[in-house]
Amino acid sequence: MIWQSVLSEDARAIKASEIRELLKVLADPEVLSFAGGIPDPDLFPVSEIRLIRQRLEQDEELHRKSFQYSQTEGYLPLRQWIAARYSTPETRLNADNVLVTNGAQQSLTLLAAALLDTHAPIAVANPSYLGALQVFEARRPTFIAVATDDDGLIMDDLERAFQQGAKFLYTIPDFQNPGGMTLPLNRRQRIIELAHEYDVPILEDIAYRDLWYDNPPPPSLLETEGRYLGKDRWADDGLVIQVGTASKTMMPALRVGWTIAPPGLFDKLAILKQANDLSSSGINQMLAFELASHHLPDHVQMLREIYALRRDAMVEALRRHLPNSVHFSAPSGGMFVWLTLPEGMDARRLLEKALDQEKLAFVPGAAFHANGGGDNTLRLSFSTCPPDVIEDAMKRLAGLISREARSA
Amino acid sequence: MIWQSVLSEDARAIKASEIRELLKVLADPEVLSFAGGIPDPDLFPVSEIRLIRQRLEQDEELHRKSFQYSQTEGYLPLRQWIAARYSTPETRLNADNVLVTNGAQQSLTLLAAALLDTHAPIAVANPSYLGALQVFEARRPTFIAVATDDDGLIMDDLERAFQQGAKFLYTIPDFQNPGGMTLPLNRRQRIIELAHEYDVPILEDIAYRDLWYDNPPPPSLLETEGRYLGKDRWADDGLVIQVGTASKTMMPALRVGWTIAPPGLFDKLAILKQANDLSSSGINQMLAFELASHHLPDHVQMLREIYALRRDAMVEALRRHLPNSVHFSAPSGGMFVWLTLPEGMDARRLLEKALDQEKLAFVPGAAFHANGGGDNTLRLSFSTCPPDVIEDAMKRLAGLISREARSA
Repeated sequence: MIWQSVLSEDARAIKASEIRELLKVLADPEVLSFAGGIPDPDLFPVSEIRLIRQRLEQDEELHRKSFQYSQTEGYLPLRQWIAARYSTPETRLNADNVLVTNGAQQSLTLLAAALLDTHAPIAVANPSYLGALQVFEARRPTFIAVATDDDGLIMDDLERAFQQGAKFLYTIPDFQNPGGMTLPLNRRQRIIELAHEYDVPILEDIAYRDLWYDNPPPPSLLETEGRYLGKDRWADDGLVIQVGTASKTMMPALRVGWTIAPPGLFDKLAILKQANDLSSSGINQMLAFELASHHLPDHVQMLREIYALRRDAMVEALRRHLPNSVHFSAPSGGMFVWLTLPEGMDARRLLEKALDQEKLAFVPGAAFHANGGGDNTLRLSFSTCPPDVIEDAMKRLAGLISREARSA
Repeated sequence: MIWQSVLSEDARAIKASEIRELLKVLADPEVLSFAGGIPDPDLFPVSEIRLIRQRLEQDEELHRKSFQYSQTEGYLPLRQWIAARYSTPETRLNADNVLVTNGAQQSLTLLAAALLDTHAPIAVANPSYLGALQVFEARRPTFIAVATDDDGLIMDDLERAFQQGAKFLYTIPDFQNPGGMTLPLNRRQRIIELAHEYDVPILEDIAYRDLWYDNPPPPSLLETEGRYLGKDRWADDGLVIQVGTASKTMMPALRVGWTIAPPGLFDKLAILKQANDLSSSGINQMLAFELASHHLPDHVQMLREIYALRRDAMVEALRRHLPNSVHFSAPSGGMFVWLTLPEGMDARRLLEKALDQEKLAFVPGAAFHANGGGDNTLRLSFSTCPPDVIEDAMKRLAGLISREARSA
C-alpha cells in the first residue's frame, strides 16, 4: 500500500515540526538544551498533588467519579474558577463561556476547525509560535505574516493584513513565544479598534501571561476589549477569544487548557471538542482545579522568583559576551530570548556547530516564520537551567557566535 | 458579531449529537438510564490505582517526569505493551506501530484528518457508532451506509460500497456499538479479501473486544489480515488500521486510546497528533501502563463475570416481556442490546413516554443511521445497573412498548 496516494490533501500539506526532529537529538543526555519551551520539572507542585490526591481518595464516590467520562465542556468547578479568574466588570464571564481542552494546543485545533476554510487568509505574527503555525497549516490557510518590532506586532502591517481579508489574528500579547515581546497598552487598544473596524476575530493566547518578572503585563486583549465595548456587551459583540493553559504554571501532563469564547461561537467549539475526543480527563481537571484554588498564587510567585533569576542570568551573559552585531532584547517575562544574528549567518548551521563543539542546543528561528525567512534568528529558553549553568553556556554560545561572525 | 457568518463550512455542517442532548435530561437523578455506553464506575480499579500511585510517588524523579510534556507518539513502555498485546506471528507489531491518543475518539479524529477529503465517500455500517459518524461528519464526507443483519455487515452491500469508491470502511467487528452484532470469521476473511481487491483501508475499532461473555470473538481484522498476507508483510501491505481504548476495560478519564498503523501511515498520524494537542497526558499513560501490566487480566475477568449477569438479565427480561413484533438478538459481549420496534413506531416518541411514565431512558436509534432511517430502532445499555434493577426496568419498558404497539 502506498499510503501517500490515499492521504487527504490536508495530511499531505502538513510537515513534521523542526522542533520535533530536534527533540530527538536532545535525547542525548550530554547535550545541554535551551531549546524546549517547557517548564522545569523540579519546580512542579508534586507535594501539593500528593496532598490533593490523598484528600480526593478519602471521598470514595467523588474519587470513582473522577475516572468516568466527564462533560465535554469540562469539569464545572474548574470552568467556574477560570471564568472568575479572567472575568472583568465589563465582560462578566461565567462557566458557560469556558471550554476546557487538552492544553491550549487543542484550543487552537478546535478554533481552526471552527473558523478556517481551506486556503483562507489568516494573520499571524512574524515570528509566531510554531505549534500554532502547525495546527493552522493542517488546514492549508494562506498566512499573512505581520511584521514585529521589540514591542510586538506593528499596527500598520496588521491593518494591511485585515484589509487583505484575514479571517482572524492569532497573537500572544505577553512575553511572546518565540520573540519574548510584550505588546504595550496602546497597541492592544489599537488591535481592538482595528478588529472592530474590520470585523476580525482575535485569538489571544495567554500561555505566559502569569510569568512576569518585572511588572504585570498590560490588560489582556480580552480585558481591553471589555473596556472598549463597555459593560455587558462582550457576550454579544466580543471578537476576542482567549486561549489559556495550565501547562506553564501548573504541569503540562495535566493536559488542561481552555478557551474563553462568546456564546455565539461556544456551542460550535463544544461540539467540535466532542467530535474530537469526547472530553478531557476528569481526574486531571480535578487536580488542576484543586491546585488552582488552593496553591496557585504561592506556586506562581515561586516560579516568578526562580525564572526571573534565570532570565537575568541569560540576559546578563548575552549582554556581556555577544558581539554587537547580534540583536536581542530582554524579555520582561515568559521563557524566551530571541536572537537576530548578523545577516547571512545561518542559525541551522550554527546549531550543528553548537551541538558538535559545545554540546548546546537552541531552536533555529526559521520555523517560526510562516512564509519563510528568519534564517539568521534563533530562540533560547531559560526555563530549565540554574543561573550558573546558563551563564557558562551563554558565554560559550556567544564565543561560538563571535568566531562565526569573524570567519564570515 | 454574528458568528454563523464567520464559521468554516466544516463547522456549519457539524451538529450536536442527540446523545449529548439526551445526557442533559439524564442529570435528573430520578431517571434510570440505559442510554450511555459507559462502564460502571463501581467496577473501576481505584484501589489498584492507589497502589500504583504510591509506588510511583516513591520514585521522585519518575514521578516528576510523569507530569512533564511527553513524547507525541506516547509513553514508550505503554506503546511496547500494546504492540506485544496485539502482535501476531504474522504482523509482528512493535512500538513504532502504536500511537497513543486521547481515547479511541481522537484516533478516529486523526484518521479522518489523514484520509478524508471533503465530500469523499466512506463506508460505515448501518447502524454505526454515533461518535464515529460525528467525527467523520466534521469533514463532510459522503456516507455509504452498509446494511447489516444479526451477524453484522452484509458482504454484498460492502462490496457495492467499495465499488462506489469508498475511501475506507469504519467497522466495530466485535459486539458492535450500537447493534451488538459480532462478525463471524468467514465475513472477516471476506472483508480482508475485498479490502485488498479494491485497495480500501479498513478502520477496525476494537473498543469492546475484551468484553466477551460466552466465547472469545473470532480473530480481529488485523489478525485476519496478518494471516491473509502471511509473515512480515503487514508493515508494507497492510490495509487494516486498528483503534483501541482503555476506556471500557480500565477507566475513561485516563483518556488513553491508541492507533495501530502501518509505517507508511504512522508518521502522518503522529504529526497530526502533535498539531492536535502535542501529546497525551504522561501521568495517565503511566497509570494505564501499570494497570495493564499488573492488573488487567484479573480486572477484565471480573468485568466479564459481572457484565455477563447484566446481559443475561436484560436479554431474559426482554425475551419474557417484549411482544413478538419487536426484534432483538442477544449480544455475546459488549454493552448493548439493539431493538427494532414494529414498523411505524417512533423510538423518539417512545423515549418521551418512557421518561415521563417510567422514568427510564435509552437512545433512539435514528442517530446511528448515517443517511437517515431507523426511526423504529433503539439502543439499550446493560453496563451500569445490577440484574434485578435491569429486570424490573425491562419489564416496565416492555409493558410500555406493548401498550404502544396495541394502540398503534
